[in-house]
Amino acid sequence: MLASDSADRLAGRTPRRATLADGRPILYFDDEGHDPGPPPADRRVLETRPHPAELRHDPLTDEPVLVAAHRQGRTFLPPSEACPLCPSRDGSLTEIPAAAYDVVVFENRFPSLPATALGSEPAGSCEVVCYAAEHTASFAVLDPRRLATVMAAWVHRTDELSRLPGVAYVLAFENRGEEIGVTLHHPHGQIYAYPYLPPRIARMVEVAARADGCLGCLELERELEGNRIIDQGEHAVAYVPHGARWPYEIHVLPRRHASTLAELDAAERLAVVALEAEMLARLDRLFDRPAPYMAGWLTAPVDAGLASRWHLRAQLISPQRDAGKLKYLAGSESLGGAFINDVRPEVAAERLRHAR
Amino acid sequence: MLASDSADRLAGRTPRRATLADGRPILYFDDEGHDPGPPPADRRVLETRPHPAELRHDPLTDEPVLVAAHRQGRTFLPPSEACPLCPSRDGSLTEIPAAAYDVVVFENRFPSLPATALGSEPAGSCEVVCYAAEHTASFAVLDPRRLATVMAAWVHRTDELSRLPGVAYVLAFENRGEEIGVTLHHPHGQIYAYPYLPPRIARMVEVAARADGCLGCLELERELEGNRIIDQGEHAVAYVPHGARWPYEIHVLPRRHASTLAELDAAERLAVVALEAEMLARLDRLFDRPAPYMAGWLTAPVDAGLASRWHLRAQLISPQRDAGKLKYLAGSESLGGAFINDVRPEVAAERLRHAR
Repeated sequence: MLASDSADRLAGRTPRRATLADGRPILYFDDEGHDPGPPPADRRVLETRPHPAELRHDPLTDEPVLVAAHRQGRTFLPPSEACPLCPSRDGSLTEIPAAAYDVVVFENRFPSLPATALGSEPAGSCEVVCYAAEHTASFAVLDPRRLATVMAAWVHRTDELSRLPGVAYVLAFENRGEEIGVTLHHPHGQIYAYPYLPPRIARMVEVAARADGCLGCLELERELEGNRIIDQGEHAVAYVPHGARWPYEIHVLPRRHASTLAELDAAERLAVVALEAEMLARLDRLFDRPAPYMAGWLTAPVDAGLASRWHLRAQLISPQRDAGKLKYLAGSESLGGAFINDVRPEVAAERLRHAR
Repeated sequence: MLASDSADRLAGRTPRRATLADGRPILYFDDEGHDPGPPPADRRVLETRPHPAELRHDPLTDEPVLVAAHRQGRTFLPPSEACPLCPSRDGSLTEIPAAAYDVVVFENRFPSLPATALGSEPAGSCEVVCYAAEHTASFAVLDPRRLATVMAAWVHRTDELSRLPGVAYVLAFENRGEEIGVTLHHPHGQIYAYPYLPPRIARMVEVAARADGCLGCLELERELEGNRIIDQGEHAVAYVPHGARWPYEIHVLPRRHASTLAELDAAERLAVVALEAEMLARLDRLFDRPAPYMAGWLTAPVDAGLASRWHLRAQLISPQRDAGKLKYLAGSESLGGAFINDVRPEVAAERLRHAR
């Protein structure tokens, strides 16, 4: 990670920086008004980091594919007392040396992308973002002060990672639920810095580049006149889009055009992240249990020159199609890329409107 | 379905045709030398077919999305005595009126695609292909005589469906395993006739159209010199490709260039389908249990003019990444389309070579 004044300025925070025992950087982002002092040292002895991931190519689709075989050995559903994302205690040293934290970001020990330090391979980075020290918390229950800290971390990391040589896209996302393969329950997200445009983003770039104006602004305008809005406020709107691919798919957009989180002012940042959290809470209420979900910020690619044509959005996806039933990607989706959604977007929106 | 001499000729079989109680066509394909006589009538009284699926559009990717809300009510893991794909017996009338069958094809009562009969909507069709009357059989254990019958059904249906007005692509595929959401255990595949190019196929068409020659022939040549071949014979080759996206991903290609199953001669047809069955058997042996998989034939699109640039292949995918562990598509794949494979393709190929 590069220390960068620009990232601190954009985020409105200066994280406390330290280094883990195997050389990985760790950054503590503190809630507003909270200053715990210099971060403690990592007292662990760590083996060399596993082999990096490898970037391959599928000639039939002309798309990159990541191979990260060392991830097979990654920590898999540990008992809560062995959680590597909880703060360190005497006798239990975790990935986070501090005894308490608000939000903390560090490089993943089992990265999916080729590490930046390796020179000849294209640059990439995988970071973990812990949202809370409490093992049983979730993004949906964070208070506004903490949500602002998470947002600051996203803005900071997106800016700094975007400046790494070769990085083409930064994706901040969260996977939650064993149903979608999550291996650690502690509330956390991830930030991937890709040395290429992820294929779906590349497709969106192609479509945006040939469009007449901003497709996101146009969609937002149409959805505001339709029957799929879930909730809206002064600065942010949440809806199920007309062409939703998943049983419960929610898009959260700032009302004003912006292509990155950094372009939003403080009130807008808080409005979009609070609406995102509220939507995740509604997913939980819908089936009266913690919903499996994937959530991420589709921000404009680095250097794509698309600022006026790319409308920033959070996309929230739950594969839960009914109580006890999941949507799986089977032959039509996996072989053909043709999605079949079992829940009408209008019905999904109505259910989510009532899940307050 | 249209009766078509062309399909019978290409398939080398003339199916026995009948009609189900709600008007859906059913076709019986008999094993070579087997002639059970005229098909029996459907003695059920069926309610009107549920509402058809709807074709929508995602403006951000400029891709179609299917919404098939009526499928929420589809038959879900019935007990074996209530299996709708077993032959009919007295007191138990199923989707197949006959008391026995070899291979049978009929339109799905819960289609994912807008039905052809509806006029204004683009045409589409969803057919079910039962591979065997035995409820506990599987594709991998079919004998060569039966495999030839299944192949005849694929060739026949692909030809006939390709001739429907508006059909752009025909995909014959199978999903197996509750792990990937299969709702009926009886051994069966499906054939979807899409009124558009499925997005992944559209991408492959774009890439093929700008390529210098046939990318499939080129890949096959390279793989034959590499270390990812699993098995090969006079007419067919199976390998894990360099850029495999899934833990176990097997491609089965005819050695001679062909863009559709219909272009293969009888010996080649049997060779590719037998190698496909053998590969599925190896997947089962790998984890010593029935493996979840998706398998399908990536044939050239209807009317794309790509016959010389599209190398027909079966693609077999298993999300099983280790005993008791599945590969899930999470944030990187679902939001970005960026695949991460946890198993090195060379390792997967070696394991499959030894799973004889």
